[in-house]
Amino acid sequence: RINGERLWAALMELAQIGATAKGGVKRLALTDLDKQGRDLVVGWGREAGMSITIDQIGNVFMRRDGVDNTLPPVMTGSHIDTQPTGGKFDGNYGVLAGLEVVRTLNDLKIKTQAPIEVAFWTNEEGSRFVPVMMGSGVFCGAFSLETAYAAKDTEGKTVGEELARIGYKGEQVPGDHPIGAYFETHIEQGPVLEDADKVIGVVPAVMGLSWYDCVVTGMEAHAGPTPMGLRKDALQVATTIMQEVVAIANRYPPYGRGTVGMVQVFPNSRNVIPGEVKFSIDLRNVNDELLNTMHGEITAFIDATRDRTGLGISLERVSYYPPCPFHPDCVGAVRNATEKLGYSVMDVVSGAGHDAIYAARLAPAGMIFVPCKDGISHNEIEDAKPEHLEAGCNVLLHAMLERAVA
Amino acid sequence: RINGERLWAALMELAQIGATAKGGVKRLALTDLDKQGRDLVVGWGREAGMSITIDQIGNVFMRRDGVDNTLPPVMTGSHIDTQPTGGKFDGNYGVLAGLEVVRTLNDLKIKTQAPIEVAFWTNEEGSRFVPVMMGSGVFCGAFSLETAYAAKDTEGKTVGEELARIGYKGEQVPGDHPIGAYFETHIEQGPVLEDADKVIGVVPAVMGLSWYDCVVTGMEAHAGPTPMGLRKDALQVATTIMQEVVAIANRYPPYGRGTVGMVQVFPNSRNVIPGEVKFSIDLRNVNDELLNTMHGEITAFIDATRDRTGLGISLERVSYYPPCPFHPDCVGAVRNATEKLGYSVMDVVSGAGHDAIYAARLAPAGMIFVPCKDGISHNEIEDAKPEHLEAGCNVLLHAMLERAVA
Ligand SMILES: NC(=O)NCCC(=O)O
Ligand SMILES: NC(=O)NCCC(=O)O
Repeated sequence: RINGERLWAALMELAQIGATAKGGVKRLALTDLDKQGRDLVVGWGREAGMSITIDQIGNVFMRRDGVDNTLPPVMTGSHIDTQPTGGKFDGNYGVLAGLEVVRTLNDLKIKTQAPIEVAFWTNEEGSRFVPVMMGSGVFCGAFSLETAYAAKDTEGKTVGEELARIGYKGEQVPGDHPIGAYFETHIEQGPVLEDADKVIGVVPAVMGLSWYDCVVTGMEAHAGPTPMGLRKDALQVATTIMQEVVAIANRYPPYGRGTVGMVQVFPNSRNVIPGEVKFSIDLRNVNDELLNTMHGEITAFIDATRDRTGLGISLERVSYYPPCPFHPDCVGAVRNATEKLGYSVMDVVSGAGHDAIYAARLAPAGMIFVPCKDGISHNEIEDAKPEHLEAGCNVLLHAMLERAVA
Repeated sequence: RINGERLWAALMELAQIGATAKGGVKRLALTDLDKQGRDLVVGWGREAGMSITIDQIGNVFMRRDGVDNTLPPVMTGSHIDTQPTGGKFDGNYGVLAGLEVVRTLNDLKIKTQAPIEVAFWTNEEGSRFVPVMMGSGVFCGAFSLETAYAAKDTEGKTVGEELARIGYKGEQVPGDHPIGAYFETHIEQGPVLEDADKVIGVVPAVMGLSWYDCVVTGMEAHAGPTPMGLRKDALQVATTIMQEVVAIANRYPPYGRGTVGMVQVFPNSRNVIPGEVKFSIDLRNVNDELLNTMHGEITAFIDATRDRTGLGISLERVSYYPPCPFHPDCVGAVRNATEKLGYSVMDVVSGAGHDAIYAARLAPAGMIFVPCKDGISHNEIEDAKPEHLEAGCNVLLHAMLERAVA
């Protein structure tokens, strides 16, 4: 069993770096605070006897040797960058749970056949630089190192410059690093475990998602003198599409999701009929065929709305990730560990993307979820219970040991 | 008959001051450009033999003496401040049409019994300083001089300071200035005249309006992991209210108006379910009882929506102007003048507020509308035809002569 108090203490110490007044953390990727966080974790890794490798996109791999170092390592990891109004656990828990596994193995003087590695991936959040899950994405070849280096923040600083500046532009070619199996512990970021009162979520798969930008173009006009019948009110048409996004998701339970999160109205003046409304659409499903059906339905609805209203409506798909089923061996290892330890358990499909979906392109992978308070994350009030974090870390320990062979 | 070419030339010359690249005008109230515009118009007034009075809120009255100067003046006017992306005609037309009337009377050596005055009111637009229609509002006692002086722009500069700085803080106590009758010519700012192919709009009344701020409070959560049934999506609830605003207006044709012009979504992130949505509601009607019914319907709908969804919804009324019927004598004078001159004509209720609604609290008042291209104003592409502007000015001349007695 791992040491829950030590895990909690590490989480609280790392959360000091970039701590916000409301109890959250703001530690954006490749800032000075990110460097401080990285240095702290790397220092802990060295103290635990691990060797450090950094690759060219700044992913950090901390390695505990195995009996047979020609075997590919059993890896765990996540990220330590946060949202601008982020919490203490998102990502950080996955990294420090890995560190706690190694500290426990050291305490118990357990040798594993395969090496054990704890990774943290660069810029998972995508808040400062897009795309999200950048480090793991470059690692698995989803996009190029050059693309990632060129990404700019709002001040025009690039990932390449900022990585060099904070001293985390390593030597290793991304992906030139074998992995035997990959596990990631994470807070659920949703309310399902809490709602069902379970401690451990076994994650069979991550949902696929389609992101769209939709623009409705009407005619800007004065709210007073323009009769209702002569209007081309872009917002009124947009609201019918926004409602359809949710209606579509509701037609595909339990894993259909539909969200409009971002809206911009032009000119956004109290007494002007909106001439243009731009909004985002986020559709998800764990089944790619159903995700595709949902895509077809929103497209058809928009075509029909264009015909019905005569307004201009454009729909552009700006991102697509297919669903990612995890490897039966890793999912099985998590399930076995949970049963052995006697925690209450259920399957929870991940609605959010994680570095694990990129790691899964290169090696068998699996995830372990623990509950977070009210299902809230990406928020300074994000919270989780020490005993749940401890339980998830114990499951990680046993799942990794099953794969690395004690 | 007035000189249409001279009127057009004056409009084009004034439009040079603050001219924008897209053919519009940006001449915000009490800026250096407003001072230049004021100086130009006052200069023209003096050249036309008029005497100038400025009151403490910077309203300017340019007076052509009558035969009997103890009679209260027949006044016309409007404003020369513009929206940030304003046009050449909104307001400016009403002032320069008045100037053209005086120039024509001078050319024809016509003496009127009552004096004639051309006024321009300070800060009608309300873009830089709120409230809107500030000069005429103070003049009629709708709010105090102190309130107006204290109004600040986004840089913290006050109306009082800026009036003094540009040299237009006059001596006269606002309102201490009799008016016999008030006429205002204005572009329609709506599509009704153009749609009906008429040249002159006789304005029987200005609609009343109620402005509201509505805030829907749900629960911010991650768009992926949060099942549809566990969401409190503030935007989805807000869209039903936005649609009801229009439905209510449509239940009270032809003068019901309902508009949602301004929307803010928090946190406004693509993969976050909106936790809060704030939006404006603009309801109008020419009948105060119906406006009140509309108010009752939106209130009831919001109460029912709160009960149905369990989300927090607040509705605050932030402005209310009652409908303003114009005086039968002034409306009649406009109608008579139009008939005499033989222009095509229809009644057009004004959907937008104008300085005339405040002037109407002190004296019989009326308005004359001319078409504007596509009904568009508050936009750099605002446009109007020289022959329509000329026609409106001829109607103004004859309506004023009816009241001032040639
Ligand atoms: N874990 C997480 O928030 N990933 C960001 C991409 C997503 O919206 O799923
Ligand atoms: N004329 C005008 O745009 N007035 C502003 C107030 C309103 O929206 O009616």
